[in-house]
Amino acid sequence: MQLREILRKVESGELSAEAALTRLGDMAERNLGFARVDLDRVRRRGMPEVIYSPGKTSAQIVKIMTALIEAGQDVMATRASPEQWEAIRSAHPAAEYHPEARLVIMRHAAPRAPSGRVAIVCAGTSDIPVAEEAALTAECAGAAVDRFFDVGVAGLHRLLNHLEALRRARVLVVVAGMEGALPSVVGGLVDKPIIAVPTSVGYGTGLHGISALLSMLNTCVPGITVVNIDNGFGAGIAAAMVNNAAGAAP
Amino acid sequence: MQLREILRKVESGELSAEAALTRLGDMAERNLGFARVDLDRVRRRGMPEVIYSPGKTSAQIVKIMTALIEAGQDVMATRASPEQWEAIRSAHPAAEYHPEARLVIMRHAAPRAPSGRVAIVCAGTSDIPVAEEAALTAECAGAAVDRFFDVGVAGLHRLLNHLEALRRARVLVVVAGMEGALPSVVGGLVDKPIIAVPTSVGYGTGLHGISALLSMLNTCVPGITVVNIDNGFGAGIAAAMVNNAAGAAP
Amino acid sequence: MQLREILRKVESGELSAEAALTRLGDMAERNLGFARVDLDRVRRRGMPEVIYSPGKTSAQIVKIMTALIEAGQDVMATRASPEQWEAIRSAHPAAEYHPEARLVIMRHAAPRAPSGRVAIVCAGTSDIPVAEEAALTAECAGAAVDRFFDVGVAGLHRLLNHLEALRRARVLVVVAGMEGALPSVVGGLVDKPIIAVPTSVGYGTGLHGISALLSMLNTCVPGITVVNIDNGFGAGIAAAMVNNAAGAAP
Amino acid sequence: MQLREILRKVESGELSAEAALTRLGDMAERNLGFARVDLDRVRRRGMPEVIYSPGKTSAQIVKIMTALIEAGQDVMATRASPEQWEAIRSAHPAAEYHPEARLVIMRHAAPRAPSGRVAIVCAGTSDIPVAEEAALTAECAGAAVDRFFDVGVAGLHRLLNHLEALRRARVLVVVAGMEGALPSVVGGLVDKPIIAVPTSVGYGTGLHGISALLSMLNTCVPGITVVNIDNGFGAGIAAAMVNNAAGAAP
Amino acid sequence: MQLREILRKVESGELSAEAALTRLGDMAERNLGFARVDLDRVRRRGMPEVIYSPGKTSAQIVKIMTALIEAGQDVMATRASPEQWEAIRSAHPAAEYHPEARLVIMRHAAPRAPSGRVAIVCAGTSDIPVAEEAALTAECAGAAVDRFFDVGVAGLHRLLNHLEALRRARVLVVVAGMEGALPSVVGGLVDKPIIAVPTSVGYGTGLHGISALLSMLNTCVPGITVVNIDNGFGAGIAAAMVNNAAGAAP
Amino acid sequence: MQLREILRKVESGELSAEAALTRLGDMAERNLGFARVDLDRVRRRGMPEVIYSPGKTSAQIVKIMTALIEAGQDVMATRASPEQWEAIRSAHPAAEYHPEARLVIMRHAAPRAPSGRVAIVCAGTSDIPVAEEAALTAECAGAAVDRFFDVGVAGLHRLLNHLEALRRARVLVVVAGMEGALPSVVGGLVDKPIIAVPTSVGYGTGLHGISALLSMLNTCVPGITVVNIDNGFGAGIAAAMVNNAAGAAP
Amino acid sequence: MQLREILRKVESGELSAEAALTRLGDMAERNLGFARVDLDRVRRRGMPEVIYSPGKTSAQIVKIMTALIEAGQDVMATRASPEQWEAIRSAHPAAEYHPEARLVIMRHAAPRAPSGRVAIVCAGTSDIPVAEEAALTAECAGAAVDRFFDVGVAGLHRLLNHLEALRRARVLVVVAGMEGALPSVVGGLVDKPIIAVPTSVGYGTGLHGISALLSMLNTCVPGITVVNIDNGFGAGIAAAMVNNAAGAAP
Amino acid sequence: MQLREILRKVESGELSAEAALTRLGDMAERNLGFARVDLDRVRRRGMPEVIYSPGKTSAQIVKIMTALIEAGQDVMATRASPEQWEAIRSAHPAAEYHPEARLVIMRHAAPRAPSGRVAIVCAGTSDIPVAEEAALTAECAGAAVDRFFDVGVAGLHRLLNHLEALRRARVLVVVAGMEGALPSVVGGLVDKPIIAVPTSVGYGTGLHGISALLSMLNTCVPGITVVNIDNGFGAGIAAAMVNNAAGAAP
Repeated sequence: MQLREILRKVESGELSAEAALTRLGDMAERNLGFARVDLDRVRRRGMPEVIYSPGKTSAQIVKIMTALIEAGQDVMATRASPEQWEAIRSAHPAAEYHPEARLVIMRHAAPRAPSGRVAIVCAGTSDIPVAEEAALTAECAGAAVDRFFDVGVAGLHRLLNHLEALRRARVLVVVAGMEGALPSVVGGLVDKPIIAVPTSVGYGTGLHGISALLSMLNTCVPGITVVNIDNGFGAGIAAAMVNNAAGAAP
Repeated sequence: MQLREILRKVESGELSAEAALTRLGDMAERNLGFARVDLDRVRRRGMPEVIYSPGKTSAQIVKIMTALIEAGQDVMATRASPEQWEAIRSAHPAAEYHPEARLVIMRHAAPRAPSGRVAIVCAGTSDIPVAEEAALTAECAGAAVDRFFDVGVAGLHRLLNHLEALRRARVLVVVAGMEGALPSVVGGLVDKPIIAVPTSVGYGTGLHGISALLSMLNTCVPGITVVNIDNGFGAGIAAAMVNNAAGAAP
Repeated sequence: MQLREILRKVESGELSAEAALTRLGDMAERNLGFARVDLDRVRRRGMPEVIYSPGKTSAQIVKIMTALIEAGQDVMATRASPEQWEAIRSAHPAAEYHPEARLVIMRHAAPRAPSGRVAIVCAGTSDIPVAEEAALTAECAGAAVDRFFDVGVAGLHRLLNHLEALRRARVLVVVAGMEGALPSVVGGLVDKPIIAVPTSVGYGTGLHGISALLSMLNTCVPGITVVNIDNGFGAGIAAAMVNNAAGAAP
Repeated sequence: MQLREILRKVESGELSAEAALTRLGDMAERNLGFARVDLDRVRRRGMPEVIYSPGKTSAQIVKIMTALIEAGQDVMATRASPEQWEAIRSAHPAAEYHPEARLVIMRHAAPRAPSGRVAIVCAGTSDIPVAEEAALTAECAGAAVDRFFDVGVAGLHRLLNHLEALRRARVLVVVAGMEGALPSVVGGLVDKPIIAVPTSVGYGTGLHGISALLSMLNTCVPGITVVNIDNGFGAGIAAAMVNNAAGAAP
Repeated sequence: MQLREILRKVESGELSAEAALTRLGDMAERNLGFARVDLDRVRRRGMPEVIYSPGKTSAQIVKIMTALIEAGQDVMATRASPEQWEAIRSAHPAAEYHPEARLVIMRHAAPRAPSGRVAIVCAGTSDIPVAEEAALTAECAGAAVDRFFDVGVAGLHRLLNHLEALRRARVLVVVAGMEGALPSVVGGLVDKPIIAVPTSVGYGTGLHGISALLSMLNTCVPGITVVNIDNGFGAGIAAAMVNNAAGAAP
Repeated sequence: MQLREILRKVESGELSAEAALTRLGDMAERNLGFARVDLDRVRRRGMPEVIYSPGKTSAQIVKIMTALIEAGQDVMATRASPEQWEAIRSAHPAAEYHPEARLVIMRHAAPRAPSGRVAIVCAGTSDIPVAEEAALTAECAGAAVDRFFDVGVAGLHRLLNHLEALRRARVLVVVAGMEGALPSVVGGLVDKPIIAVPTSVGYGTGLHGISALLSMLNTCVPGITVVNIDNGFGAGIAAAMVNNAAGAAP
Repeated sequence: MQLREILRKVESGELSAEAALTRLGDMAERNLGFARVDLDRVRRRGMPEVIYSPGKTSAQIVKIMTALIEAGQDVMATRASPEQWEAIRSAHPAAEYHPEARLVIMRHAAPRAPSGRVAIVCAGTSDIPVAEEAALTAECAGAAVDRFFDVGVAGLHRLLNHLEALRRARVLVVVAGMEGALPSVVGGLVDKPIIAVPTSVGYGTGLHGISALLSMLNTCVPGITVVNIDNGFGAGIAAAMVNNAAGAAP
Repeated sequence: MQLREILRKVESGELSAEAALTRLGDMAERNLGFARVDLDRVRRRGMPEVIYSPGKTSAQIVKIMTALIEAGQDVMATRASPEQWEAIRSAHPAAEYHPEARLVIMRHAAPRAPSGRVAIVCAGTSDIPVAEEAALTAECAGAAVDRFFDVGVAGLHRLLNHLEALRRARVLVVVAGMEGALPSVVGGLVDKPIIAVPTSVGYGTGLHGISALLSMLNTCVPGITVVNIDNGFGAGIAAAMVNNAAGAAP
């Protein structure tokens, strides 16, 4: 913990009490007025702050990106609209945009070689945008990703055909809308943790994804955990963290 | 339609207008004050009125049963508590009680030989009371019933082991709580209509069966219809009606 | 069951174990990357896979249609927008579009002569798009369909006028928004299974169809089952399945 | 308006400003510490304050009753439990209790001859407690009441048999649980205002009466208004007010 | 009741049984294919069928209007959009449109002289469209209407200033959004029935009017009944019915 | 209380009873037909009536503003759209508009020197519009405001860095969307009242702010109170009232 | 801020780095295994940790009390059941219990003289338990409290009679169930902050207090903030904090 | 995949096609009539089937346990009531019961030495039953577990004091009721996956855990996944799976 190091330096006279206080603050945040960019997050969390785009102006997003880049950190902006992307591209031409997943990615350095295996499974073609967001996010966080799309429970053999490949993953992200039954079915067949992502695909009593979410939370198969509706990004990060924990284990 | 017959009799002078009005009423209802027993339902619906027990006193249930029996009709009382059953047994010793399904049945005559095949499938042992209510109801309405209990999606092979038997049914009732995924999985494998019954088995976000219900309504498999939570009775009647329609078709 | 046949052929030496595995996969799915078209569904379910259009690009829909057509199967695409239809029409000029029901239909061969009778009943003029989706779907699945539109409970005689015609159906689809009372009223008068479809017609506490749905699930008339809000397609398939079961019964 | 009278008396010197203020307060409330009994309500509302029993101790109820009686007013206590009733009976032996409706009534003087006609209609035997609460309340407020119990939509002829009697009422209270369809059906047949009362009869998606309530609020028949679930008392008062308004009209 | 008259004519030989059946149908409905116009409603309900515009094409609305006009009945179309109004105006230039209330009215004959007094009260300026819909509807149904707009509870004296005028009404319609407290406050001060209309005015936890609706249903003041959110039309009809009942009382 | 003064004047003969009644009305409201502007609110509430813009026409807003200005009162219009602002600017060029907070402010006189300290804290950049609405409102009501933006719990040190400044406030407004955890965390660290404002920032199960609202209502930290979702205005007024109460204390 | 002092002592050599870390922990928490009692809360929050009784064993509550008492702090235990109270009384005979409010209070020293004025207002007698919890809590936290019970909106004059007394408070707590209208009405009449407490008094659509809560959150009167349903304790603390802030102002 | 092995044996003549089918079934399930025990789950899922006790009779639970024990598998029964435990203890004296966590555990053999580190963190003493269920489950599945109880956000230093210990875990389970903020706060400070468990601790708008659940799903900290309310068991299994995946990684 950082506090210990700081205290040690104050103890040894390397640092005055006041300087210690200032330095803690400066080191950890960059105050842009409308945003306090958390530059300390890489150290604490293993990955930099990510920009949630809705409700921010394009100018705000560009300035936060600049602050992160100047601190030598990789950048991800989630749920970026095409309009926001236009502004980002002008300011940061090296950034890349994945329109289906609405994801902006800008890497400071060449990425590490991917490690482990994360399987991204989705029930239907309409779920692909969320599944892609999860896949790109996990890749961005260092995982090797396998995609298994459109293997929903209406045609179970499509899933059974790929069981051996699914079982090779360290962790699976399973994306489904409507009745959200796929995670339970996959979960009954593999022995790895599953992160379920409900999507808002459906209508009427689908309740914009609430139905799929409830399904996943009430699974009769233990070992399945759930994220917010359409939150491919969160599932991708969580999967990468599990994958990294596995990779880092002695 | 009855109106036509009545009109014909009035036309032919067999019946006065006033007598026709009175007779229509008398024939069709038996007014007990607290209840107007619908004696005409067999003719219209193919099955007699059924007594919904909650909120009725034991005395009221007994009197409605008596009215139905006096009219020569079979009797079912659903959701009867042990206390209500005690009162019924005293008054109508020939009645039988199925405590798990909370169902009272009293047949006026020997039942017809069962016809067709209705499959009753349930996901877990805790769903059996509802599944039994459906099975007994369908049998009471003339169907031959096959039971497939505890074949939930957590162990899919238990279902796949019985696929051929399931496919022999004219109609399937699939009962499940928690995430309610079983109807979708069964529905992807058979070519018969499926009536899904959500149960209140589960806790927390199971919301007393709402989660399973939403799952079933949002199935990605067409051909699945749904009844109220824990409504084994309604599913049994609907299945028997489909079974009868099939049996009666020329 | 297919597994048995495959095992028999492996037993007899007609097929190697590996070939059996491959063939099972190839036979059953056509992998387009973004979609794994379930070509086996006709065998299992009696009807081909249907395309749910929302959330798919026009290009994806066209490619899935092509895969189905190449496999000699009929095509239905539900909830297709006018924009999606334009793209479909360019690629598959033989397809037809029903704009009110948002349904694309493309038949591979001349349809079978319709059999049985499915009654499609709706409460108001505003419910017709959903009722038409049900009617067209049931016709597409081989049923003869009678339409009874705008016979809601505010003017009950409109329904009573057609009672004899309604009673001729093997199964009824009853479509209603607002308070969704029509299925209960029809259900009290006929002796055939009823599939109730809530619509999102209404406002305020109509809750986009939740009110009608709850009404239908809580019907005091047994024998009524329910599908998702505005799901005319699902009701049409379920009705056709009941109709077919009846027609096929010995 | 009272203010005018008070001002006139102050103007004429009959009353000092301070005395006017005190008198306004004294006249209108009786402060028991835990309750300020509204003795002015008869003048403003045409009927005295009514005691809502839940959450009150028996001692509190008895004291409020005493205060009302001392002011020469009739007393009603709604939703009184048998335990509360025991305490009331000891203190006020002249009171009467209707256990089904959970209603305590104590009249100060002989009631007026009832006037008008209020019809109380209910769908099933299980709805009778709420219907009785409405009927007794309306009678207590001076109306002549006709009861039509157990005429639900599953057996429509039971309702049609009594149409002429129903049409004689000045206002109808229609009580129903489950799908709550009865008010719409009655409303389509009569030309008088209807007050609909949803009951908590039902289970599962009945949601303790929410389903019936939504049905009634979304009726396609104009002229129907709704009260809280199981609120027979409120419906009875509202019906009596309509009945009285009609009776009082010049 | 019509059935009696028909039976009498059949009895007397004036009518054959078959003719009676046909005539019942013909007299009561005009079948336009997409709509069965209920021409009998005036007789049963005291007012003609009203057109609910959403979900109907302009052409459908125009045709239903024509059918009603040809039957000599007045026409109201609720929630008509400006686009629908344009089409109506072309076909029926004598119709009038109230854009704020989205109401189309076309009278066949000069209206009766208004009778009684209906008070329309609303809490804020933003509630006026709903209040106007109620006021115009009640006027259209024969009532004399007084409007009291923007008298919400934040400035109670605005209401108290008009108490005497409010008390002159036979029935009050009280319209409010947000917390929906106004009906309770008015209800505590007058002795006439109150019809409360929640509006969707508000945001966040206003839940598009659900908050106001719940408030009104849970009023501690008996004698208040409620209609659907934003349902000024329904409240206007109900108020007119109460007003008429009062006016018609002997 | 005003009534006392009026009564005193009537007692002393300064005022007739009728004049008193009229004057009470005139003084307190300005009737514009569509609005009754509450000119008495400054006296009762310490601040003038504020205009809620949604659902009002631009012309209505302008006229209400004019009435307030003519009465010598300051004006605030909340949630004003750019279109409404255009109309206001034309009529009242001295008004100012804060587009992010959608707030129109027009001061009649130079504001008082601000007093006290209100801290406005928000979790993320996307919450700033609501936070700004609170800040501007509190300033308009006489408070000195400190802004602490983008200090959400994902980077706790950003909050801890400013703890001493936060503790200097008399009252804090804490604005957060998504999981709404910030008020609890701040509340555990300061000894002043906290007004929590949930925002609709988020998606899926955020339920447009319901999730954050529930979080705040269920805080384990006593001393936190909550306002409606996105209600920066209400929080600003409440904070100013607390600040003023503190300032006014002897 | 404590960190600064600690750093200063480390800087001056008074404290080693390790000792500083240990001391921070020891000073602030007392680890009982099942609980870590927050002894630092008085310093940070101005009041000690309070024990939430539900879900804790009596033994756990007693031990937490002992730890607080040993640290010289006052104790409050909220929502304590009679069974829990029995155990507490045995261990800490000096404690006092308020059964209506379910509150256990044990003061270490004689309380300060109360200061300021907090008004506790409630709508009905059934709301008193929650109002008492608020009143006792505020008193315990040093405030002088005035109680105004049973002044609901059905009899508005009861409230108006006490307006001058209400206006003397620095802050008001307004408690109401059912439609929860009282805070808006009080809020329109006073110029002090109002803390609204919804109660679960009511039935049906009262939804155990949700209806009153929504009412209060949607108030049209600014300056009203809300706490959780039945949370008299939280309201009392918040009111005391406002009262203290006012009292502490120079 | 098992199918491949079976096919290989059929290919080599070791097995007939029919025998293969039978054996697949026998191997994988033990049919008790009311339950089909999934003996194959250890192979597929890495852990045996677990018994969900609610809704099962004690006799059913005992028989399922016996079947699992006879198959040489460990047994867990979740949510077992004291009554169920009594029956289990009689039949299987070697089983152990954890009453707080309502968990029955019976090990067939000595457990493996625990590996890895799973941290179980909970917010308050009332959350301990759920936290213990998670801890015992994870231990049962082979993990070494550290417990950090009662470190909720109201006293943040209790959490910060243990940060280094928390960071040593491979995965964290964070349990909280009420506002459910703890997972977000912990998540902002560690770089390991977090499994959040909402509990039903709280009241009113806590909605039996829904509020905490929504909080957790809407966390602004990526890498947090969620299970059902009070589902300590599911969280324990998921954590053990992550822990095992990490331990097993090469």
